[in-house]
Amino acid sequence: MILIVIAMTVIKVSERVKLKDPLFIEGLPGVGNIGRVAVGYLISELKAKKFATLYSKWFFPFVMLHDKYKIHLLRNEFYYCKGKKPGERDIIFLIGDCQSLSPQGHYEVIEKILDFVEKLGVKEIITVGGLATGDLQASESLIGSVTDEKVLKKYKKFKIDFKAGEKVGYIVGAAGLLLGLGKERGIDGMCILGQTSGFPIVTDPKAAESVLSVLVNILDLKIDMGKLEKKVEEMEDFIKKVESLQRKAIMDMAKTTKAPTGEELRYIG
Amino acid sequence: MILIVIAMTVIKVSERVKLKDPLFIEGLPGVGNIGRVAVGYLISELKAKKFATLYSKWFFPFVMLHDKYKIHLLRNEFYYCKGKKPGERDIIFLIGDCQSLSPQGHYEVIEKILDFVEKLGVKEIITVGGLATGDLQASESLIGSVTDEKVLKKYKKFKIDFKAGEKVGYIVGAAGLLLGLGKERGIDGMCILGQTSGFPIVTDPKAAESVLSVLVNILDLKIDMGKLEKKVEEMEDFIKKVESLQRKAIMDMAKTTKAPTGEELRYIG
Amino acid sequence: MILIVIAMTVIKVSERVKLKDPLFIEGLPGVGNIGRVAVGYLISELKAKKFATLYSKWFFPFVMLHDKYKIHLLRNEFYYCKGKKPGERDIIFLIGDCQSLSPQGHYEVIEKILDFVEKLGVKEIITVGGLATGDLQASESLIGSVTDEKVLKKYKKFKIDFKAGEKVGYIVGAAGLLLGLGKERGIDGMCILGQTSGFPIVTDPKAAESVLSVLVNILDLKIDMGKLEKKVEEMEDFIKKVESLQRKAIMDMAKTTKAPTGEELRYIG
Amino acid sequence: MILIVIAMTVIKVSERVKLKDPLFIEGLPGVGNIGRVAVGYLISELKAKKFATLYSKWFFPFVMLHDKYKIHLLRNEFYYCKGKKPGERDIIFLIGDCQSLSPQGHYEVIEKILDFVEKLGVKEIITVGGLATGDLQASESLIGSVTDEKVLKKYKKFKIDFKAGEKVGYIVGAAGLLLGLGKERGIDGMCILGQTSGFPIVTDPKAAESVLSVLVNILDLKIDMGKLEKKVEEMEDFIKKVESLQRKAIMDMAKTTKAPTGEELRYIG
Repeated sequence: MILIVIAMTVIKVSERVKLKDPLFIEGLPGVGNIGRVAVGYLISELKAKKFATLYSKWFFPFVMLHDKYKIHLLRNEFYYCKGKKPGERDIIFLIGDCQSLSPQGHYEVIEKILDFVEKLGVKEIITVGGLATGDLQASESLIGSVTDEKVLKKYKKFKIDFKAGEKVGYIVGAAGLLLGLGKERGIDGMCILGQTSGFPIVTDPKAAESVLSVLVNILDLKIDMGKLEKKVEEMEDFIKKVESLQRKAIMDMAKTTKAPTGEELRYIG
Repeated sequence: MILIVIAMTVIKVSERVKLKDPLFIEGLPGVGNIGRVAVGYLISELKAKKFATLYSKWFFPFVMLHDKYKIHLLRNEFYYCKGKKPGERDIIFLIGDCQSLSPQGHYEVIEKILDFVEKLGVKEIITVGGLATGDLQASESLIGSVTDEKVLKKYKKFKIDFKAGEKVGYIVGAAGLLLGLGKERGIDGMCILGQTSGFPIVTDPKAAESVLSVLVNILDLKIDMGKLEKKVEEMEDFIKKVESLQRKAIMDMAKTTKAPTGEELRYIG
Repeated sequence: MILIVIAMTVIKVSERVKLKDPLFIEGLPGVGNIGRVAVGYLISELKAKKFATLYSKWFFPFVMLHDKYKIHLLRNEFYYCKGKKPGERDIIFLIGDCQSLSPQGHYEVIEKILDFVEKLGVKEIITVGGLATGDLQASESLIGSVTDEKVLKKYKKFKIDFKAGEKVGYIVGAAGLLLGLGKERGIDGMCILGQTSGFPIVTDPKAAESVLSVLVNILDLKIDMGKLEKKVEEMEDFIKKVESLQRKAIMDMAKTTKAPTGEELRYIG
Repeated sequence: MILIVIAMTVIKVSERVKLKDPLFIEGLPGVGNIGRVAVGYLISELKAKKFATLYSKWFFPFVMLHDKYKIHLLRNEFYYCKGKKPGERDIIFLIGDCQSLSPQGHYEVIEKILDFVEKLGVKEIITVGGLATGDLQASESLIGSVTDEKVLKKYKKFKIDFKAGEKVGYIVGAAGLLLGLGKERGIDGMCILGQTSGFPIVTDPKAAESVLSVLVNILDLKIDMGKLEKKVEEMEDFIKKVESLQRKAIMDMAKTTKAPTGEELRYIG
């Protein structure tokens, strides 16, 4: 029997948008959750609008619960925001609950994302990640890497230290592969890495603030940074709960992928 | 050489059915086997009829033996039951031997199930799961979560505590993903979680009975609950045997996925 | 970019054969290597002819070396043997170097095998496996299981104890799935399990001989059993070497799936 | 929803080439990095030209950084070199950053490579690998294995010991599978294995030199071997850095494949 495979990385578009030379900014979960916090805050402050949702078989095989009783399928979300001034380019943001669970899943999901944003006219990507230094007192300076000399020239005036290769060596997941695979399509890209202690794995609001500052400069925006600290504080309890959920999820998965029992066989038949 | 992939999640239909606004109720194995026992008992009492079978490459790569000598391919089974009174909706039940072994398998199998029941007209799903509390004396109250405000309103009169988000955080496997992925198709859903100690992982008949009671209320059925306890007692010995089989299966799989030996090379050639 | 997937479980046919109501007998590696030895010996004694070869991405990602210097791709092999007397059915044998490394691979490879033999007219399968009892002094009696009552009736006159369900519980890999998935296609099947101590995992010639005896009875053959012991003795040294290769292979695989180094980057460019 | 799968092993051709009876020489990373060093040096000395690049979802899901700030997608690279003298055959070289992370990935990537080089007219492959002997003082003699008697005859005059089967048993990854799968397409092949201590896993320049010598003889080239030692020395520091990156990468991957946190849910919505 020969059947067609279900690919199951799906992007559902809720609003068809036409964008002007859009810049694509990624902030998926990662080390220190720096991208998530920085990009999430931007979305909130710019009142960016959600227009597409991605879910994938490469994510964790569970749903989350929020607002006490609501089922939430794990997802990544695309937001857009029109340029405020005449002639200004539009922005697409990507945030989400998680990245792929497996190595090949990373490639497949990111190819899907690139297919999608390429069609929307994206020719430049900025990704945000975290560098776990292992030091309790992490430097606040940002580290950058680019797809190209040309991109370096464009951004070297900002407070980013383009010596990533010396300190980092490699960038895992979306923050790296969006640029690497994007480059193969002729898309320019830069990754901005905030430095964080990285142990234990918690959200690092200071590193996120550093990244946010430079993003605001690059995008030439006026953002009220004061609310960031408050928002992060608000999240503190929630974050801790989430951290323990994560640990529990991984432990429970081992238990629930049980062997079959055949009990129904006797019980029903 | 380019070939078509064998997808190998197959649903074999043994009876073509036409159903009236069918409610889909899932009770696959999970924490405490609560769904299996509750839904299995309903099937038995309602004399629901099996009409389709699902098997998948994402299940354990072995067959079970039952009735002493018979080979049994691991499977999930679909049953249906016509509404007893005029105007009453029909029900589809899903029970089975196991769930997927791997994360992406969960997504693929559940998409397959949704494809199937959607074609049968399903617009509402109830899944049953278990919440391992870790307490020896688990509460008998049921915890619920829904896809939608609308569903909450419909079911809040029943004895279900819709504060799942506070206690649970996430729902693994079919009980969660059927709702999460179903919602993307516009299907309403509710998950009912029975509370169980969860250690050691054994079938919890009391939690199953709680779930069964509320299902009977929701479905407005008259079911002889007395037989449940007896049936569970009957299963006691069997369950223990099955538990040890599970442990053995996982250990044996490591041994039997042996490297090749090349012995035949010499032996034959 | 959208591409067709390479399925990579390939059966290469070297001789087109027309077979009369062929019986399919499987003897791939497994517990005690009982099937391999028994079926391999049958092939050798009956001078069965190789007519097809299967290889798969689900096998170990290495080649073996034999005859000192020759590369050998891991494979399964199909042999056939025409019925000796008028009206007698033909036989297809399957032996090989290994089974699938991963659970879903088992399903995919076995579906491929069933597709192939079904087209050759196979309506009955006999698989051979081993039951690791854990006892040093394993019983020589054979344990059987079948797809169907009808098959039981046919074979109960032979020295097989059809109480597998009591002792075994499940059958892993090809010996089990060929029957389970075959049954879904309407193919009858029986699995014969020899009992072996199973610790350490070595080839068990005595259990293989028991299986061979009953196969010879079932097939109504005249086979010189005397050579079996000698052949097994000949293999003794080889088997031990192979056993250590297996252990080494699994350890080496961990080492060789190395992260990239980027060394060429500097070295070349 | 039924979608076409993204295969994601891509070969990008930067120059269309027509080659005369090309010999295909593989030197991907492996034990002792022998092939990488030997084949990389050949490419450099022969001024071979890059004409195609392969990347794959089966590689590590990260990008590397080099030249301080540049993103580098993991890849394998094809080079070619025209025969220097009239009537001499052309050569295709394959080097790269890594091999596949998973067993089935090996098969899929190597099939892709074979599809590609077969179309370019390749009828012979030489692969280079390393044999980890575990001895601190590894022998400098080379070990060979071939697809065919015919290939043995052709190369037995060179300083290669064709008794691989006695010492090795199996060859993991590209060095082995290119020959095993190539043979199924009627492509001749030889694997040359340099002996290396293999503990700790470091680049072994001496073993690489041995392989290089014999390759130079086989190809009837004039190469300045003196530069090899110097180049390897230059790489020493870099290699050590890379080694620790590898270890870090594997450890970090465990950390970064985090469960979802749902933080954005509250933060944004």
